[in-house]
Amino acid sequence: MSDDDRSKKGADILAQLHAWGTPNVLGPLEQIAPDLKNMVRDFAFGEIYARPGLALKQRQLVTVTALAAMGNTGIEFKAHLLGALKVGWTKEELVEALMQLAIYAGFPAAIHALLAAKDAFAEADGISPAT
Amino acid sequence: MSDDDRSKKGADILAQLHAWGTPNVLGPLEQIAPDLKNMVRDFAFGEIYARPGLALKQRQLVTVTALAAMGNTGIEFKAHLLGALKVGWTKEELVEALMQLAIYAGFPAAIHALLAAKDAFAEADGISPAT
Amino acid sequence: MSDDDRSKKGADILAQLHAWGTPNVLGPLEQIAPDLKNMVRDFAFGEIYARPGLALKQRQLVTVTALAAMGNTGIEFKAHLLGALKVGWTKEELVEALMQLAIYAGFPAAIHALLAAKDAFAEADGISPAT
Amino acid sequence: MSDDDRSKKGADILAQLHAWGTPNVLGPLEQIAPDLKNMVRDFAFGEIYARPGLALKQRQLVTVTALAAMGNTGIEFKAHLLGALKVGWTKEELVEALMQLAIYAGFPAAIHALLAAKDAFAEADGISPAT
Amino acid sequence: MSDDDRSKKGADILAQLHAWGTPNVLGPLEQIAPDLKNMVRDFAFGEIYARPGLALKQRQLVTVTALAAMGNTGIEFKAHLLGALKVGWTKEELVEALMQLAIYAGFPAAIHALLAAKDAFAEADGISPAT
Amino acid sequence: MSDDDRSKKGADILAQLHAWGTPNVLGPLEQIAPDLKNMVRDFAFGEIYARPGLALKQRQLVTVTALAAMGNTGIEFKAHLLGALKVGWTKEELVEALMQLAIYAGFPAAIHALLAAKDAFAEADGISPAT
Repeated sequence: MSDDDRSKKGADILAQLHAWGTPNVLGPLEQIAPDLKNMVRDFAFGEIYARPGLALKQRQLVTVTALAAMGNTGIEFKAHLLGALKVGWTKEELVEALMQLAIYAGFPAAIHALLAAKDAFAEADGISPAT
Repeated sequence: MSDDDRSKKGADILAQLHAWGTPNVLGPLEQIAPDLKNMVRDFAFGEIYARPGLALKQRQLVTVTALAAMGNTGIEFKAHLLGALKVGWTKEELVEALMQLAIYAGFPAAIHALLAAKDAFAEADGISPAT
Repeated sequence: MSDDDRSKKGADILAQLHAWGTPNVLGPLEQIAPDLKNMVRDFAFGEIYARPGLALKQRQLVTVTALAAMGNTGIEFKAHLLGALKVGWTKEELVEALMQLAIYAGFPAAIHALLAAKDAFAEADGISPAT
Repeated sequence: MSDDDRSKKGADILAQLHAWGTPNVLGPLEQIAPDLKNMVRDFAFGEIYARPGLALKQRQLVTVTALAAMGNTGIEFKAHLLGALKVGWTKEELVEALMQLAIYAGFPAAIHALLAAKDAFAEADGISPAT
Repeated sequence: MSDDDRSKKGADILAQLHAWGTPNVLGPLEQIAPDLKNMVRDFAFGEIYARPGLALKQRQLVTVTALAAMGNTGIEFKAHLLGALKVGWTKEELVEALMQLAIYAGFPAAIHALLAAKDAFAEADGISPAT
Repeated sequence: MSDDDRSKKGADILAQLHAWGTPNVLGPLEQIAPDLKNMVRDFAFGEIYARPGLALKQRQLVTVTALAAMGNTGIEFKAHLLGALKVGWTKEELVEALMQLAIYAGFPAAIHALLAAKDAFAEADGISPAT
């Protein structure tokens, strides 16, 4: 696979996940570490996410779960939650997945993720042109 | 919901996830904290897992992902991987999900989870009556 | 134990821990995941905290320590610190417990917990009707 | 405080916590980093644990809780559990404290800590001259 | 080593690391736990950092790396980044070290550390008398 | 950069870090996730480690520190410690770096890393043809 293929595939997947109101994580990163920004697109999305063995919708559940389990509930978590809605998960399903984390990561981790989801869903509703 | 309903629902879900060769996590726990063992069945499986808003197959992906992202790759991780196969995930899909964790939890976390999966799959193959 | 017993016990313990100025963690949670809010009351407080084998005062030290050791120093940590004062710990004892975490979780974890405690104690002093 | 005072105080507290069957954590450490071994005695026990503001029995609950919440359930966890029994906690109280961690650190963390406690208690019973 | 020696050594190292615009971590800590503040100076800097076996410049890379890998990217991380510049690391080298954490701690940890570095470098540039 | 360039660069760096007695992490990984094994070589070593902005010797200190701070003291930690010796760090310097982690990640994390280093150094001494 050439670098161009990788970049194109990564950009294509990012576009599929990009929803109205998605926070801009990669913009500020470009100012301090532009090559890492490119690695996110080319490696994380172009090489891993682009692999055929697991559906994009399922990959998005993996990402949302992993971030929340690790206590990572900042802007990239919100961006991935909105991406999860865009690829077909419902808000109810995402809330259920995050509630389930109370078993494995403890109630505080689940609560923090759900409060971040509440904010992300509210922002998306406020920004979406369909509303 | 009565305690009996909860216990029955939890036991039912545990049975759906229980595969040949599943490591026995709850047996040793019963000797030191029998009530916690019951809470796993009644609360974790009977109240959370039993909720209707997310399919059991999806819940199992959430659990496998959360455990691996947190570096929890011991016996309950292996038990849940075998449960994931039983409710319909393929080995390939689970390998893809764990590889994806390299992005979010780092390569060592993904590698540890995959080496544990290698062992779990091998044990299951050796024990399964169909093999 | 019936669901009503559990809820009543959980609400009773929450009332014993509730101090003037306690941040409202469960209110916002109710808007996104009302059932998880109920599980906090019924399971976390009604089933675990309510168990007779360890005194409530000791349970509160366990909670404050666990949250701080895991780097969880947000609103529920502040709420539990104020609850700890209410069930009989002194500010000096809580400061000592958090300082001790420098040994086990590192100085930054201890420092973050102590700075959160400084804010929580100050807010409580400002809000308390006795001051 | 002189270095000698610190060392003496630390050694005195270590002796109070040292129980029959306590695993030897500091012996192997001395072979690779003798000065760190001394810092454990002089700083961790001689300066922090030795402080008057919190009782030794309470400090031991803080340590056991912090280690278990962080997933640290190896030899020093077992050593501290045995120390906790020696300074007056009962097995039942320690089991309750570890069960409570299911709320804050998740069920797997509580289960791992309880299984380690089961082993530590069994070893202590087998080794103790009074048994 | 006497307490005075330790304090003097620690204060000397803190002075070597202190750069224009360094956030004040220890000031607020002094108000809630003055003895812990002294332990940071006397133990962390006076006993550990002051040891001869590793150069101060290298110790500063260890600290910056450890904090970022653990997800600790608050005020002490920024203070240590500015200290790293002062003892001879370039911004480019620090950016490279933080990018490398994407391999071990995952992309989100690396991104959070780099965004904190972007802010710290910008604040330092704005405050420094030489600019 | 083509895939071949990346692979060649990664393999070259792995060879520079590979010491007598290095544990084989990537062999077992190849059996379950061969593409992840290639990503370690091509992305982790061929794209990140191979970047010119930080010397290989410094990168190795970053890796050893990050793994130890995160509590990752298994076979890849031992492999990287031996790699660190090979690119010019002394055992004393590595011991100092790991001792320093007591400040940031707590004494148990530092102790676990040092005990793993004791084993890794002993194995290397036993295996090395020069000894």
